[in-house]
Amino acid sequence: MGVLVVGSVGYDTVWTPMASGKDVRGGSATFSSISASYMTQVSIVAVVGDDFLQNHVGLLQGHGVDTSGLEVSPGKTFRWTGRYGAEDVNSRDTLETQLNVLAEFNPTLTPEQRRQDCLFLANIDPELQLQVLEQMDRRPKLVAADTMNFWIEGKRDALAKVIEAVDIIFMDEDEVRLYAQEPNLVKAARIIHDQGAKAVIAKRGEHGVLLFNQDMAFAAPAFPLDRVVDPTGAGDSFAGGFMGYLAETGDTTPGGFRRAAILGSVMGSFAVESLSVERLGGLAYQDLKGRFDAFVGLTTFNGLGPGESLPWRNKDGKL
Amino acid sequence: MGVLVVGSVGYDTVWTPMASGKDVRGGSATFSSISASYMTQVSIVAVVGDDFLQNHVGLLQGHGVDTSGLEVSPGKTFRWTGRYGAEDVNSRDTLETQLNVLAEFNPTLTPEQRRQDCLFLANIDPELQLQVLEQMDRRPKLVAADTMNFWIEGKRDALAKVIEAVDIIFMDEDEVRLYAQEPNLVKAARIIHDQGAKAVIAKRGEHGVLLFNQDMAFAAPAFPLDRVVDPTGAGDSFAGGFMGYLAETGDTTPGGFRRAAILGSVMGSFAVESLSVERLGGLAYQDLKGRFDAFVGLTTFNGLGPGESLPWRNKDGKL
Repeated sequence: MGVLVVGSVGYDTVWTPMASGKDVRGGSATFSSISASYMTQVSIVAVVGDDFLQNHVGLLQGHGVDTSGLEVSPGKTFRWTGRYGAEDVNSRDTLETQLNVLAEFNPTLTPEQRRQDCLFLANIDPELQLQVLEQMDRRPKLVAADTMNFWIEGKRDALAKVIEAVDIIFMDEDEVRLYAQEPNLVKAARIIHDQGAKAVIAKRGEHGVLLFNQDMAFAAPAFPLDRVVDPTGAGDSFAGGFMGYLAETGDTTPGGFRRAAILGSVMGSFAVESLSVERLGGLAYQDLKGRFDAFVGLTTFNGLGPGESLPWRNKDGKL
Repeated sequence: MGVLVVGSVGYDTVWTPMASGKDVRGGSATFSSISASYMTQVSIVAVVGDDFLQNHVGLLQGHGVDTSGLEVSPGKTFRWTGRYGAEDVNSRDTLETQLNVLAEFNPTLTPEQRRQDCLFLANIDPELQLQVLEQMDRRPKLVAADTMNFWIEGKRDALAKVIEAVDIIFMDEDEVRLYAQEPNLVKAARIIHDQGAKAVIAKRGEHGVLLFNQDMAFAAPAFPLDRVVDPTGAGDSFAGGFMGYLAETGDTTPGGFRRAAILGSVMGSFAVESLSVERLGGLAYQDLKGRFDAFVGLTTFNGLGPGESLPWRNKDGKL
């Protein structure tokens, strides 16, 4: 059914122990739409400034992304500057966030976009997420949102409305705890579930993700990589892969969600292998399939076969 | 084949957000031997002081643990005091460690112990681990060791000899990085593997474990619990379950290691559900099997069936 993505498109300035770059392509909609684009038709709603380079629009178009909803406004494009730890590449400091044209963004959907069946509200101001949701002709079949601590702390009420309205919410695990004000992750996810989101996906960076819904949990590890160049966009790429799979297959069974979580993890693992979208933007089917199969190898163990039991020294349960 | 366990037996004083206890049963050999005892015959080598309560020996014996190698020395039993974070139950401060009789311990194996085919050197001074290894009549079929940052920092040379000598080394993931002096976990595990340990098991607390050997990695999540009472001994219980499974089945194939990692995770998940060994010490077969099956549910997803492919917008690999 394809997916409509709203989020940020911007330029990142990044230092990691392995690489650095100034004004490289970034933003939640950039990573998530490229990630989803391998599996499904993507259409984006976003804003850039008049300093945004035409060939950077071309990158999205080259992935078949419909950019008719990419508004160009007078002013500067959204910019983010961050630095990752030398000892721990997964810890990061945000040095500067310039909203620029994003500060005045009023997303306007095209008629085609208003009819989309699958909507992904990538990480952006929850008030903008709600504006997009309200413009839909009808409630889409599948709605998901991503968010971050900045909005939990600053726009809690709007975010609560987003959570009430969505099927799936993506948050870092610390953000799940922060939003729910509950240190136990399982209880925190249940609180958010009870507020409306049917599935809560706790992103744990290098430790993978935990997917919670009413009656099950599913754990997907992150792929253990011997070279992590730049973690920026890993979570957005995860969400993009997750949503791309669901949007294309329409498989919202528990099994579909599980495979979506693995494909999200596959995409997240590619995103961190380079600065910006260098690696994520250049995948072939064999890359996708190869890493998907590697996840099978990473996680598979033999459950109990028919009639098989675990070793136990005294089968009546008493030693 | 049973397992010989050397490690600490002591008393813990613990504060967690959910519980606290003074002089509760603790020590690496206590947790790991009880954990292993459900699946295989355990024999321990350890020392306690003359203040150790006879009914605490009885707890081990009640699990069928051979305590003929439990030496009682004049003086006080090993004691550890720690406090876990109110916000993050997985972070802990060690407030006091009293080695007491452990400071002068010279483990002496019984003739039966010297002939054991499976040896687990639980977390204790690596010099004591080496002393035990040297007393074996021949190199056991399977040798594993656990350790911690304290020994990495203080007894690096002895620990290096342990790592050279073992088949399996258990360490927290930060300790893998610390020992290898390499921030990337995959590379760090490879360095330790190249120093002798055939399998490196990086324990990640609430995030589970990663098992590395020459040509594969396996990720086992921790079980998501809505009530974590006391994380003390989780790693020891993990190792005990892992070794108990391998010792009993003798299955050191990659598949055996994977199932061992899941059974270790099962045991670790029980250990944290109560203070000390209250929960771990009272398991029935249905508990073990029920949680093992729950791990199947937590981790299983469908790989690609014959002829099945992942969604891809352009099968020739170019969009």
